[in-house]
Amino acid sequence: METKLAQLKSLLIEASNLEAAARLLAWDRNTYMPPGGGPARGRQIATLRQLAHEKWTDPQVGRLLDDLGPYAESQPYESDEAGLVRVARRLYDRLCHVPSWFMADFYGHTSVTYEAWSQARPENDFGRVLPYLKKTLDLSRQYSGYFSDQEHVADPLIALQDYGMKATTVRDLFAQLRQELVPLVQTITAQPAADDACLRQGYPPREQLAFALEIVRQFGYDLERGRMDETPHPFTTYFSIGDVRITTRVQEHDLSEALFSTMHESGHAMYEQGICQDYEGTPLARGTSSGMHESQSRLWENIVGRSRRFWEGTYPRLQATFSQQLGDVSLDTFHRAVNRVSRSLIRTDADEVTYNLHVLLRFDLELDLLEGTLTLADLPEAWRARMEADLGIVPPDDRDGVLQDVHWYTDFIGGQFQGYTLGNIISGQIYAAALAAHPEIEDEMAQGAFGTLHGWLVENVYRHGRKFTADELITRVTGRPLSIEPYVRYLKTKYGALYEL
Amino acid sequence: METKLAQLKSLLIEASNLEAAARLLAWDRNTYMPPGGGPARGRQIATLRQLAHEKWTDPQVGRLLDDLGPYAESQPYESDEAGLVRVARRLYDRLCHVPSWFMADFYGHTSVTYEAWSQARPENDFGRVLPYLKKTLDLSRQYSGYFSDQEHVADPLIALQDYGMKATTVRDLFAQLRQELVPLVQTITAQPAADDACLRQGYPPREQLAFALEIVRQFGYDLERGRMDETPHPFTTYFSIGDVRITTRVQEHDLSEALFSTMHESGHAMYEQGICQDYEGTPLARGTSSGMHESQSRLWENIVGRSRRFWEGTYPRLQATFSQQLGDVSLDTFHRAVNRVSRSLIRTDADEVTYNLHVLLRFDLELDLLEGTLTLADLPEAWRARMEADLGIVPPDDRDGVLQDVHWYTDFIGGQFQGYTLGNIISGQIYAAALAAHPEIEDEMAQGAFGTLHGWLVENVYRHGRKFTADELITRVTGRPLSIEPYVRYLKTKYGALYEL
Repeated sequence: METKLAQLKSLLIEASNLEAAARLLAWDRNTYMPPGGGPARGRQIATLRQLAHEKWTDPQVGRLLDDLGPYAESQPYESDEAGLVRVARRLYDRLCHVPSWFMADFYGHTSVTYEAWSQARPENDFGRVLPYLKKTLDLSRQYSGYFSDQEHVADPLIALQDYGMKATTVRDLFAQLRQELVPLVQTITAQPAADDACLRQGYPPREQLAFALEIVRQFGYDLERGRMDETPHPFTTYFSIGDVRITTRVQEHDLSEALFSTMHESGHAMYEQGICQDYEGTPLARGTSSGMHESQSRLWENIVGRSRRFWEGTYPRLQATFSQQLGDVSLDTFHRAVNRVSRSLIRTDADEVTYNLHVLLRFDLELDLLEGTLTLADLPEAWRARMEADLGIVPPDDRDGVLQDVHWYTDFIGGQFQGYTLGNIISGQIYAAALAAHPEIEDEMAQGAFGTLHGWLVENVYRHGRKFTADELITRVTGRPLSIEPYVRYLKTKYGALYEL
Repeated sequence: METKLAQLKSLLIEASNLEAAARLLAWDRNTYMPPGGGPARGRQIATLRQLAHEKWTDPQVGRLLDDLGPYAESQPYESDEAGLVRVARRLYDRLCHVPSWFMADFYGHTSVTYEAWSQARPENDFGRVLPYLKKTLDLSRQYSGYFSDQEHVADPLIALQDYGMKATTVRDLFAQLRQELVPLVQTITAQPAADDACLRQGYPPREQLAFALEIVRQFGYDLERGRMDETPHPFTTYFSIGDVRITTRVQEHDLSEALFSTMHESGHAMYEQGICQDYEGTPLARGTSSGMHESQSRLWENIVGRSRRFWEGTYPRLQATFSQQLGDVSLDTFHRAVNRVSRSLIRTDADEVTYNLHVLLRFDLELDLLEGTLTLADLPEAWRARMEADLGIVPPDDRDGVLQDVHWYTDFIGGQFQGYTLGNIISGQIYAAALAAHPEIEDEMAQGAFGTLHGWLVENVYRHGRKFTADELITRVTGRPLSIEPYVRYLKTKYGALYEL
């Protein structure tokens, strides 16, 4: 069995080598590639992805998994061997359920859809993308149909990002959250908005980037095994546990951009850097789900990075670095500025409180479309109605409504958005558990020290990689299943204090 | 036949995609990879190279080449179709002649040899590498033995870098060159050496890099299809005709380092950028040989970049950029400084005149070793004797003698060095042909314009890629076979003027 396990690992590591190469080619395209490299680069990435797919679906992988199945089940569930076989089996089955011609067709379709969207959005022309979206919806249902054991048509699509989460469970959870958030937003926005003028002065980009990088280094992002570059859209990518990179962006007249983008990506990156080195090159060496990943980016960006205790320790240095801009700005003013809540149209610009309402809207509309209770022709109107109901504002056009996010125009309809809000909910629950275990975390934070929190997260979350599902991990780490309660309590406590509610 | 040609291209483009990915991973390792990425990166590159090899040696490639052979022969020799089939056949046969286990063994051996050399060189301990070198020599002969049609044991090794060149021809050519160079070096070095103190002042690195980049942009290096980064050892690499990158290095107290390294690499890069776009992704989309490649790096670095006419146009700008350092330095002084000739121990530090003597020494010793007329145990002494005979100096130790170059410790013995001097010889012959066709080239150069020269090289050399062998190309471009005469005339004219011989 050890020989077979070694053979399986060796095949999967080859696939992982190809996937890592594809990601490096994509990273390079986003960072340093000269414009002339574009056409060949697309072709090169496609070859690598196709070969990785072939390696994964090699019948030899299936035979080894068959042979190893009983052995793996005889091992403790927590053992690395059982975990590897379990996760590899799941991924192998998922890839084998779907014919490769279907995925090739789908990628072809998304690439023309993206083209159409790129033109339709500036022209505010939903009609232009409508026929493409109809096909996307058909293909999304068809993809789902390849999996016979689903409870809900969206389940196989959700499983692509958040394995183990079910559409009906998530819908219920989100409905509870909405009931809390809508009145909270109403209460907060009934008050005068916080003044964030202090953030909108001129801040030299180079100094901003250096400051942001120093913060995430203190958080625990290891620059011996990572680096930071600039891109228009920040992202995290990894080539091995020893090489997990982030990108960020900087705006001279918005201090919050580089600061919080960098913290956000560092959360993703510390998760990947914290995975057990023994898993290197295997399917265990990833964050376990989109929601769990987002919980870490949000934890470091929001729960830590926008907290009063954090800035108690860090604001004096920020003030010293930008003394001309912030010399006369109090900690309270700055802290309120970086936590400004306002009703706005664009998800990616939204604050911590309203953000989830944008996500819930999209998630519910996805389910309605998949179930057939909403038609695509009615989607723009449904979007407006829900914005009105939840946020009390209505987008003046589709450009800032149904055309705003790229997701439906480059991927399936279904499974695209739940991870963002699952991440917020999970971040609250996990942070509460960390605090319960180590009440000193916030005092340390106020001293600019993050070792206890980071160490606890590595030990309890990061090192496991994909061995446990998000659900399993949450229960192991917090002693109970996923619940909105800690997250809602966090929001109410924080914003209650900020707005003296 | 068109379908089969398309099938062949499509298979070869897949192999090319994998090779390009492997090169990007290597480029990243040399430029931006954090230290922690090292172990996984080696594994990733190995997978890509192995799969590229599998794609190349796929029996389907052989069948298509068999089917296309007669068709290709019926086409004009100059046609792209005939060229593609001819070059692909040659490369396919070369790869198939050698068992893949042999190459795997050889790579394993070179990797331990490199380790041993890395320790032996600082410790000046040739004895430590001797057993490894013995195996390298055996394996080099064994590699050669896989090719039955050789005239000389070194021919298959030379063909890896300089296809078409034969050991005996090159040896004769180099012997002629040596007869010219040894007395020339004696005459020059009998005079007082040029004073290059002006180059050894403090020059801010950032300004040096900007100036060097601007020069090569003027030469014709297209930054929309390339970029420059810093590495300890400069190199050129390409990922497609639209993405050919150079690296350079800079020393604050040696102005010549960044300037001439950048010019050198830009010559390699302009060659690859100039290849006909129709060849993209096929085996035709490369420079045709090591010698031809080196002829272009040397042409731009030395024949153009160290010429009096070039600096007539460019020195005033250099002076304006570094007015504090060069304000009082005359053009003559500067020009003599960048053409300083001196007898030195290290090949890579050698000037334009003595450089070839270092190469000839290594080439002749490689042949002697392969032929068995020299044993490895006697190699250090043979090195010293030849240095004494040709350059009149003797290395005080093996560190700066037989241990100085990495080549024999990472690759075969044989075929490693001839390209450098072939490049110099070819550069003289090709430049003479360019001047004959366009006598205005040097007047333009003195105005800082290089379009005529660059355009002529693209049209006559670069665009053909690998369609013609170096020999064929030289005859096509210059109207006669390779000869040392133009290069020797160039050296004698230039250094005759500089040293008033």
